[in-house]
Amino acid sequence: MNEEATNGETFRFPLRVYYEDTDAAGVVYYANYLKFMERARTEWLAALGFDLAEFEQSHGVLFVVARMEIEYRAPARLGDRLEATLRLIELGRARMVALQDVRRGASALAQARVTLGCIDRGDWRPTRIPAVLHGRLEKIR
Amino acid sequence: MNEEATNGETFRFPLRVYYEDTDAAGVVYYANYLKFMERARTEWLAALGFDLAEFEQSHGVLFVVARMEIEYRAPARLGDRLEATLRLIELGRARMVALQDVRRGASALAQARVTLGCIDRGDWRPTRIPAVLHGRLEKIR
Amino acid sequence: MNEEATNGETFRFPLRVYYEDTDAAGVVYYANYLKFMERARTEWLAALGFDLAEFEQSHGVLFVVARMEIEYRAPARLGDRLEATLRLIELGRARMVALQDVRRGASALAQARVTLGCIDRGDWRPTRIPAVLHGRLEKIR
Amino acid sequence: MNEEATNGETFRFPLRVYYEDTDAAGVVYYANYLKFMERARTEWLAALGFDLAEFEQSHGVLFVVARMEIEYRAPARLGDRLEATLRLIELGRARMVALQDVRRGASALAQARVTLGCIDRGDWRPTRIPAVLHGRLEKIR
Repeated sequence: MNEEATNGETFRFPLRVYYEDTDAAGVVYYANYLKFMERARTEWLAALGFDLAEFEQSHGVLFVVARMEIEYRAPARLGDRLEATLRLIELGRARMVALQDVRRGASALAQARVTLGCIDRGDWRPTRIPAVLHGRLEKIR
Repeated sequence: MNEEATNGETFRFPLRVYYEDTDAAGVVYYANYLKFMERARTEWLAALGFDLAEFEQSHGVLFVVARMEIEYRAPARLGDRLEATLRLIELGRARMVALQDVRRGASALAQARVTLGCIDRGDWRPTRIPAVLHGRLEKIR
Repeated sequence: MNEEATNGETFRFPLRVYYEDTDAAGVVYYANYLKFMERARTEWLAALGFDLAEFEQSHGVLFVVARMEIEYRAPARLGDRLEATLRLIELGRARMVALQDVRRGASALAQARVTLGCIDRGDWRPTRIPAVLHGRLEKIR
Repeated sequence: MNEEATNGETFRFPLRVYYEDTDAAGVVYYANYLKFMERARTEWLAALGFDLAEFEQSHGVLFVVARMEIEYRAPARLGDRLEATLRLIELGRARMVALQDVRRGASALAQARVTLGCIDRGDWRPTRIPAVLHGRLEKIR
């Protein structure tokens, strides 16, 4: 658990662009920024002390993206060293909203607003974010 | 060229969900809807008479997603037969906006508003949509 | 069910190369040929009358790739129209071997020998290929 | 450059399994092991002092997988911490062969023998591995 990295701060996760991430235009394929952002969400939870796979399993929930707005500003290229970031900006009972970007140095290549919903693993319906996580998130909002 | 399918109409492209599209939650992974929508954009252009790869090469342009808003409503599952759709709603000189969804039967599983930019292949800057395509698109808006 | 397409014959499934399939070298990324081949396996079973997702669910099995040898001969490019093929060459009680390739016209771009195992969904151990499918496959070997 | 990590030794690159890597069977999708192995190849070259993207660009070459034999032994699952490894076993003028695996702890989940070819970026024909890299690789075989 890395308090400094997450408390009131923007969480940052380092990435490198491999061939798998690129397309024939010579840049990172647009859908792959969503993979980068998902990695950052998983690592952000890990930094808060929660292993996503274990947590979802033991609490019978799944976190799903309900909505996303993403702006592509500049291309990332093969070999680039990037960062995917996350900052929590809203926290509801069954939803949260995060700002995420993928940046190279100081320059944001893609910026997104991501709404995550907590759902029941069984019936796939909205359910409360488990208290142990909700309590932890309230402190860093 | 399929006039009926595109002129003032919503273009539809059939899809099937394979293992490659799914994730450990048992559903289509959220980034893969963007792949489905890109396939539909390519096939829409093909239906209008334009081979994307050839067109971009010969005109020295690329079409890139500049912005996307996507709402995930219900999950698609392994083996599902889906449709990815496209309807052009705005046409500028270097930009266009399309509504796209991924649906199973009458039910939209994911809905998006996609802003596409036309850029110069060399300097990666906005450039006019080549006249032959712009003229064709004006007729179907 | 398409008897002609499968009985003693090579099954063929048409594909088109989209941006998602390519990489910064301008060609189809090497791992994506495995996706193409998996699509062909799924469609081959469908042509034999078996919906893979339903079949695995109802029989409590999974088909997994146990071994693969693949040779990459020539690159596929954006916009290419390809075929992924399959020919069953060995059929055991819990395993089968297929030859698969990805071709453009008469030219095989990638050729593979794929060993598929049938496993129990619960304990992930080898188990017999369900009789209804095994019987069907014996006829086309 | 990390001499210890590569000289006569097996190179190891750490990985974590995210949702993007998994499929509806609850495990890592078979094609994605090839992505893991490619990441390890890129990082192995980086550890030897060669940035793949820069090197290919400046020398006018590409490294492509010509042949791969892969055995899948046990599944990797969401959240797993894995290692992708590489050991160079053959070095020719225009080809090299590496053993690679993806392991969780001491257990190899997938094992591969990968033949890489060096080709000319222009005509896509086999060409000599540039001397600066070939010399470096001779020392670690």
